[in-house]
Amino acid sequence: MTRKELFVLKDLLGTNNQVAAEIRRSLRERRVLAVNFLSSPGSGKTTLLERLVDVFKSRFRLAVIEGDVETERDAERIRARGVTAWQITTGGACHLDARMVGKVLAEVPADIDFLFIENVGNLVCPASFDLGESLRCVLLSAPEGDDKPKKYPKAFLTAQCLILTKMDLAAALEFDAAKAAAEALSMNPKLQVFRTSAKTGAGVEELAAFFTESLERMRSSGA
Amino acid sequence: MTRKELFVLKDLLGTNNQVAAEIRRSLRERRVLAVNFLSSPGSGKTTLLERLVDVFKSRFRLAVIEGDVETERDAERIRARGVTAWQITTGGACHLDARMVGKVLAEVPADIDFLFIENVGNLVCPASFDLGESLRCVLLSAPEGDDKPKKYPKAFLTAQCLILTKMDLAAALEFDAAKAAAEALSMNPKLQVFRTSAKTGAGVEELAAFFTESLERMRSSGA
Repeated sequence: MTRKELFVLKDLLGTNNQVAAEIRRSLRERRVLAVNFLSSPGSGKTTLLERLVDVFKSRFRLAVIEGDVETERDAERIRARGVTAWQITTGGACHLDARMVGKVLAEVPADIDFLFIENVGNLVCPASFDLGESLRCVLLSAPEGDDKPKKYPKAFLTAQCLILTKMDLAAALEFDAAKAAAEALSMNPKLQVFRTSAKTGAGVEELAAFFTESLERMRSSGA
Repeated sequence: MTRKELFVLKDLLGTNNQVAAEIRRSLRERRVLAVNFLSSPGSGKTTLLERLVDVFKSRFRLAVIEGDVETERDAERIRARGVTAWQITTGGACHLDARMVGKVLAEVPADIDFLFIENVGNLVCPASFDLGESLRCVLLSAPEGDDKPKKYPKAFLTAQCLILTKMDLAAALEFDAAKAAAEALSMNPKLQVFRTSAKTGAGVEELAAFFTESLERMRSSGA
């Protein structure tokens, strides 16, 4: 980060929670469930979203916001599946913030059910920035190792949902999913844990069902 | 990051380059080659260091600085191999900075050959912080995908060395090492590229030879 970016960040932090609260209010008014995906680079956020799009698109209306430091690559992958996607390139910044999401929000159709937000690949900084989501999911892939929750605590402490990804590789890599889940749950006992493989499709229907229930719960609560 | 941390960071950035230059000068005076390892969480920094320690420890004197948001886990792994290691836990910050390294430096024995510094697992922020290293290595693991260099450019632009890791998984994961290397080289043509597997040991000797040559070059240049 440059010095200038830090000044911008300081300013953003001052107002981030306020902007996030406004986004949350606006999306709930539209009865849209916003889900923030947060993880390291390459842990499978976009591939899992592609799978979810395939499961959801005949049943629900979706839109996706993609966050990256550079390139339109991830938004292009989502658009190739027939779903509207906006690419936010931060140009150096290490996370999305609520203002960036707010700028896109005006273009998001009012009649969607789910707004998925894929954050910049970074297991540290995005955890500090509320984007106005209703649900925060932290992804941890089998190749990253089962020792990560306590090493990168904030993401696991602030999420409602832990998605273990690339579980098809777990046995070969000696990734102990139960150990990773137990460590995360020891820090945040309310975490909902899912074991998925975008490659085999394992666990994706269960995760989709959880998102559907969360949508219905939000709508029936009138919140 | 909290607001307080941002003020601290702003201050650090102002002096970081100055402190880093002082560390670099001090280490070169001691004829120590400092190597900064930078990558996403779980891309294999510590496991590769364990391998390098095994290759190097009968021939050279080593020390390791481990950076993490929380836990002593990585330093314990290095110490278990008989090598002195310091754990810097940032307590939330997303990268090491030169001051953190500087505080440890007084304890580093004067007679070592290599000082390896393993940064906090984060492919974005650590790229902006010079730690006074002589050599910066960015690691990219096969499971992360071959599309990462342009998505996370700064790490690849500021490194002298790209280490592709977990290459034993490349075929199964359809990771195209040539594509990843070409993309990184298109941004930074001077990058030295290594393909390694800490599991099979492939490429580790070549990497160790590169570090040895770099040490000899630094010593013979008298810099």
